Amino acid sequence: MSDPTVISIDAMGGDFGPPVIVAGIAETLDTWRAKGVRFLLHGDQARIEAEVAKRPGLASLCDVQHTDQVIANDEKPAQAVRRGKGSSMWNAVEAIRQGAAGAALSAGNSGALMAISKLILRMVVPDLDRPAFVAPWPSSHGITTVLDVGANIDCDASRLVEFAIMGAAFHRAVRGVEEPRVGLLNVGEEDQKGHEAVREAHALLRSGRFVEDYRGFVEGNDIYGDVVDVIVTDGFAGNVALKTAEGTEQFIRAELRSALSATLLGRLAGFIGQSSFRRMRQRIEPNRGVPLLGLNGIVVKAHGGADARGLASAIRVAVDLAQSDYASEIRRNLENLTAVLAEQGPAEPAEKLG
Amino acid sequence: MSDPTVISIDAMGGDFGPPVIVAGIAETLDTWRAKGVRFLLHGDQARIEAEVAKRPGLASLCDVQHTDQVIANDEKPAQAVRRGKGSSMWNAVEAIRQGAAGAALSAGNSGALMAISKLILRMVVPDLDRPAFVAPWPSSHGITTVLDVGANIDCDASRLVEFAIMGAAFHRAVRGVEEPRVGLLNVGEEDQKGHEAVREAHALLRSGRFVEDYRGFVEGNDIYGDVVDVIVTDGFAGNVALKTAEGTEQFIRAELRSALSATLLGRLAGFIGQSSFRRMRQRIEPNRGVPLLGLNGIVVKAHGGADARGLASAIRVAVDLAQSDYASEIRRNLENLTAVLAEQGPAEPAEKLG
Repeated sequence: MSDPTVISIDAMGGDFGPPVIVAGIAETLDTWRAKGVRFLLHGDQARIEAEVAKRPGLASLCDVQHTDQVIANDEKPAQAVRRGKGSSMWNAVEAIRQGAAGAALSAGNSGALMAISKLILRMVVPDLDRPAFVAPWPSSHGITTVLDVGANIDCDASRLVEFAIMGAAFHRAVRGVEEPRVGLLNVGEEDQKGHEAVREAHALLRSGRFVEDYRGFVEGNDIYGDVVDVIVTDGFAGNVALKTAEGTEQFIRAELRSALSATLLGRLAGFIGQSSFRRMRQRIEPNRGVPLLGLNGIVVKAHGGADARGLASAIRVAVDLAQSDYASEIRRNLENLTAVLAEQGPAEPAEKLG
Repeated sequence: MSDPTVISIDAMGGDFGPPVIVAGIAETLDTWRAKGVRFLLHGDQARIEAEVAKRPGLASLCDVQHTDQVIANDEKPAQAVRRGKGSSMWNAVEAIRQGAAGAALSAGNSGALMAISKLILRMVVPDLDRPAFVAPWPSSHGITTVLDVGANIDCDASRLVEFAIMGAAFHRAVRGVEEPRVGLLNVGEEDQKGHEAVREAHALLRSGRFVEDYRGFVEGNDIYGDVVDVIVTDGFAGNVALKTAEGTEQFIRAELRSALSATLLGRLAGFIGQSSFRRMRQRIEPNRGVPLLGLNGIVVKAHGGADARGLASAIRVAVDLAQSDYASEIRRNLENLTAVLAEQGPAEPAEKLG
């Protein structure tokens, strides 16, 4: 068994490397102490230890495992798998397999992290092509869990059901919601809407055998409403939704800045309202930790450009997952899916349904 | 030939019917006069004429064709086609076929409008399943044209190329951009990204035979940047993007309101900045006219809940399309596509490429 109290971190990942990674750990030191968390940092020992030494009390929570190999941000996944052995990212993930850590975190190259994690940890269900990226999405009721947001482009019905199972288990573990409401992203709410894969997944999920509280089809704007807790979609639509939302947020903030700076009264309002605007920004800002779901082990991708606060929130996701029974719950429910699909017919089960 | 100076309007459509429809026409009366536009209004003659009479100078621009049949907002498309003959929506579209108008507009039931328009006008290319919905999307450089946003859920490569042709012709006619830059929505910018249909469409569009300025793959956030003018996608991803953006906009405005009202300083800033916030809202608000592309004739869907200002902007889209050579340009380019695909091979041409 892996040690759930140790978080293995690629200290060289991200746009800034050790200074910001270590600052992120130091950001909420009291929380880690209260939860009994320790860190295993991978990378350039001298640079990491210099950063650790700057923060009083941090050294006692950190172990450093030296390597001078680093995976570049523009390295192709296949290349990273071939040449990445012994790199800080590789060692961070390998620590899970060896039982030295309960979760791994990297702010480095996403494609490389996905490929290396799959190779080292393997998927929970063998025919799952790649891990799913899950986005914790700010919404009026807190956080909506959306997956897949980019790893699996073509998804059949059984893959969407797998995402529903993984997403519900994830939301329960991280958000503490006992029975998460699950929705399937579509272009309308009626049963006949959408393409074959979503209609078949809808029929499977309605049977009630995979997630407890399936609420049916939802639409893009429902991500923000108090309608469901988990939204399931294929990696193409999910990635389009994620990037469109990021673009919308940046566009509106730019338009707000420009409208306020256009007039004297606007500039005054902008000055007086500073703390309100900051509060709004904190509410709408996405969480920076995106877990890779579907692996035999917990791997969290932090945003490459995240600052110390962003990294602390990503680390928090890794800690919560490592200390929950998320991993065993996902395995149990996925075994159930495999059994049900086997009843329905051989080979390509999703084809037989609907 | 149809009369490009006459716009045929379903005066009973939308959430409010004649009062708001007529108010929308009256909103920019000087523009219509300058462009020599006249209106043919379909619906309850007494109610329409009562609204027209309230606005000085409007009566001379309007003809009314009476009918007491109306298509309900919750009517199924198939039912609307069967029972809709003689309704205000049906007659508005029929006026194009009869040559009495250059464009039709309705704020009523979208599905019914699509089905009735396809039946009466037929598609430009016979194997196009349904018209494409095109969204004029606010962006940093003005308006980005995005299609399809919901009509065609499953799209192969040749359908995506058709959308590119239609979208470029539309953008040129309505936005006055001589060579619109066209992009294909995907989950990354590299050639190997995405599913088969987008990769094949990418190969077709790069040949340069269908649109003049194809810029390759774009991502969701590029809708807002000054990267391309037209973004092509299937109706599933397009609809998800549209509704996610609407949800994001509403969420951020709600969070802004709540952040400003939480403190005394915030409330003061909100009061002083009123006109700046209004300016921002006008910039980020979507245009309310969504044309149905791919028909032998111009049909514009106005948002059901649009107010007079929203309707005026939707009518403006219909007027600009009717007075441009958009229709003949689309026909010319689509004939070109058909010829090129015929060279490549029989039956399912897109399968042979890429």
